[in-house]
Parts: sequence; structure tokens; C-alpha cells
Amino acid sequence: MESGKIILKDNEEINALHMEGLKIIQNKKKFCYGIDAVLLSWFADARHSDRVIDLGTGTGIIPILMTESTKAADFTALEIQSESADMARRSVILNNLDSKIKIIEGDIRHVQDIFAPNSFNVVTSNPPYMNPETGIHNNSDALAIARHEILCNLEDTIKAASYLMKSPGKFFLVHRPSRLAEIFSLMQKYRMEPKRLQLVQPAAGKAADIVLIEARKGAKPGLKIEPVFSVYETPGVYSAEIDHIYGRK
Amino acid sequence: MESGKIILKDNEEINALHMEGLKIIQNKKKFCYGIDAVLLSWFADARHSDRVIDLGTGTGIIPILMTESTKAADFTALEIQSESADMARRSVILNNLDSKIKIIEGDIRHVQDIFAPNSFNVVTSNPPYMNPETGIHNNSDALAIARHEILCNLEDTIKAASYLMKSPGKFFLVHRPSRLAEIFSLMQKYRMEPKRLQLVQPAAGKAADIVLIEARKGAKPGLKIEPVFSVYETPGVYSAEIDHIYGRK
Repeated sequence: MESGKIILKDNEEINALHMEGLKIIQNKKKFCYGIDAVLLSWFADARHSDRVIDLGTGTGIIPILMTESTKAADFTALEIQSESADMARRSVILNNLDSKIKIIEGDIRHVQDIFAPNSFNVVTSNPPYMNPETGIHNNSDALAIARHEILCNLEDTIKAASYLMKSPGKFFLVHRPSRLAEIFSLMQKYRMEPKRLQLVQPAAGKAADIVLIEARKGAKPGLKIEPVFSVYETPGVYSAEIDHIYGRK
Repeated sequence: MESGKIILKDNEEINALHMEGLKIIQNKKKFCYGIDAVLLSWFADARHSDRVIDLGTGTGIIPILMTESTKAADFTALEIQSESADMARRSVILNNLDSKIKIIEGDIRHVQDIFAPNSFNVVTSNPPYMNPETGIHNNSDALAIARHEILCNLEDTIKAASYLMKSPGKFFLVHRPSRLAEIFSLMQKYRMEPKRLQLVQPAAGKAADIVLIEARKGAKPGLKIEPVFSVYETPGVYSAEIDHIYGRK
């Protein structure tokens, strides 16, 4: 199937993003982006002159959204899975973003073989959340690789972010609050200081299940806690914050 | 001034606590307990057989409240300031809690000279929050010592808690969310794993300014985030959670 100059492969489709004019190629049978990626691209900031890298970009959702949500124009996106990297590359062409986003197929664990140290101002990542021991999965499955720490774990991601980041530079991470203690300890190990934390809860009175963290390399301690917000206002009805993030209000 | 057998000194008064029958001696010109201590005694749990120690007990508010809020009956409370330790000792007598609470005047930095290692099941602390460099204060002032890290800092408190705690044992800490990254890193350094986190915000939509943490020695990683709650429902009106904690509803 062809859409303009873009070839769609089996089970792939083009989905409109919430930001006007932006689209993404997804395979409904594999990994599709979720609210975490949308929240991270909203939480992250980057200036016009910043070089930005997204670690484990999947279908490229975060840099694609950040071309609209920030003024940055120089994005690199690293993805280990050929199939995802290929979809991301075609989504970049589909959105006419070839001059802004470069997709590179490569391994977070070997960033030093691909990039010079301290070569990016901003690093973003929505890495796999789950320990490989938790949950039933097939280690060669694309979805399992995106969700479980099979090909890279939390330490690999934080270590790579620290290697790649200029000093000062910013790292924006989305993860599960249950991993917060490990995240902070690893950030300290790799000389990154957590500076801003945003918890997102499913609904009022429910425990937060998404955490967004901004860390800065070599910064002084001191964490700013953003007010918690909910995804849903009432069952099935998004909160004002989510509507705002999705540009619906 | 005399109240029963209890001598009150200059500027001291006896205040009723929210838990029926409990009272505390405070000096309004010095440090009076606040909501943080009440929240910590609510957040902490201890079993009947547990040996509990409170580090930097001030006027003894936390163990006094925990004699009601938990089933524990063996509390030790350490306080470096003679004047506070003396008030705490008289409050213990005032409440007829001499058989349950022992006030010890001593330094958190030298717990190994006072107590055997791994000799408590539960450690609680509402330590000074602020870096000594921040804010104007007089280093010899009792209020400054209670609020600023003059005589003990975060690392001293966490190190002492780890030394004193049995394995497994629980550590309950109340602090400022701005120090969360340091708290988690220090807990890891001293082999304590943060297991439960409660943020408390002044009001809905405001950033949390109180954090309660439960850590366990030698435990596996994995942090449970409790739903955030607010102190105030509307300006001047406490939330249902605070009313519940203060036993008003």
C-alpha cells in the first residue's frame, strides 16, 4: 500500500497526531505510542539552538511531537529495532521533517561507538519500564522489547544520557513511580541531578502511575515538585490538564 | 508554675493534643510541633512487640502520639538540646507514659556510643529540613537548631537510622520534597530501600511541600506511591484527610 511517496507495510497505518498536520505510521499489532510519550514531549523543553536526542525512539513519536511543541530543529532519534527505526524514518518523510529529525538504528548500550561525548543539549527517553523478570513475554518480540528491559535497562539509559549530554544539559525521562528510588540513585551515580518532578495519577485519590523527571548534569541538588494532575476527571472524561496537553481546549 | 507534679518553666504551657487525653509541654517562644510531626505519627506503623526510636524528638511529640496511634509500648526518643529533652521528659510524666517512653539526651551523630547496632525495629524522624546556609539564623538558637541542619544533617540522620535499625526494620521520615533525590541516594548508600511515599500538598493544584517516606533495610527495590492529598480543601478549611488524621471526623 502506498500513501503519497510513503510505502505502508503489512498491518501498518497512518494515524493523525493531536498536533495539527502531524502524522505517524504505526503497526497496531506491534507497539503503538501511548500517553506517556505525549506527556514527555509536553514536559520536555528545548531551545532553537539545542541538539536533541531521543533514546529508544520507537516509531519516533517524541521527536516528531517536539518539532511542534519546542523551537528545536535538530533532533536525533536512536532505535535498536530495525522495524521500528524503519517506520520512524518513513514517518519523518511523511511529515516532511527530514531536515529536522535523523533516525539512527543503534544500541543505547553502545552510544560511545556512535556519538561523541557531551554532544547533545537535551536528551529525552521513554524507555522500557518493566524488569525482564516481570510478566510473561517472548524476548524476541518487538512489543516485549519496547516494554521490558530486555535490550536495555534503566542504568543503560541513564548512563547513555549522561555520556551524551553537554554540561549543563537537560535529560527528560518518563517512567513508573515505583522505580523512582532507583532512578534517583542512578542519576546521582552518573552525575545528573533531578531538578523537576511531575507525577500523573489516573484519577483524583488514585496513586500516581506515571512520573516525568527533568535532570541536569552537574547541577546543585534541589528538586521542584510540580502539582500532581489526573488523566481522568471522571470515568471516561479526560481532565482539563490532559485536554490542554492534547490541544483540545 | 506547677501543674500537678509537673513544673512549668518560663513561657512554657501545656497544650492538649488531638488524641484524647494526651498533652504536651511547649514553649511558644521556641519550637512548637507542627503538622509534619502529626503526619509522621499517622504515617508510621509499629507492632506491639516493636522497639521504636525517634531521632531528634524535640518535645517528644512523635512518640507521645504513637503511643496512641500504634500498639507499640517501647519508645526511645533522642534529643540533643537539653531544654527540649527536659520538656519532653516532663511531657512523658504528664501523660503517665514513663513506662513506655524513655527520653535520652544525645547526639544523632554519635548513636554508636549510646545504642547497640540493629537494636530497634522502627526508627522515626522529623529532622531539621534546611541547609544551614539557607535563611538567616543564629546557630546557637534552639529554633534554628530544630529547623536547620546545624547539629545534624540529612546524612547523619539516615546513617544513624541505618545503624540503629534491625534488618528487616522500618524507617519513617518526614521531609521536604525538594530534598527527595538526596534522601533516596543517601538511603541507598546506607542500604535502606524506599518502599512507600506519601506527598502532601497545601491545596489541590499546588506543589506538594511535605513528603513522608517509609524505607526498609535490605529490602528489594519497588516504591509504592500513595495518593497525594491536600491539607486544605478550600482556604481555611481542612481536607477530609486532615480532619481524619486529627480525629475530627
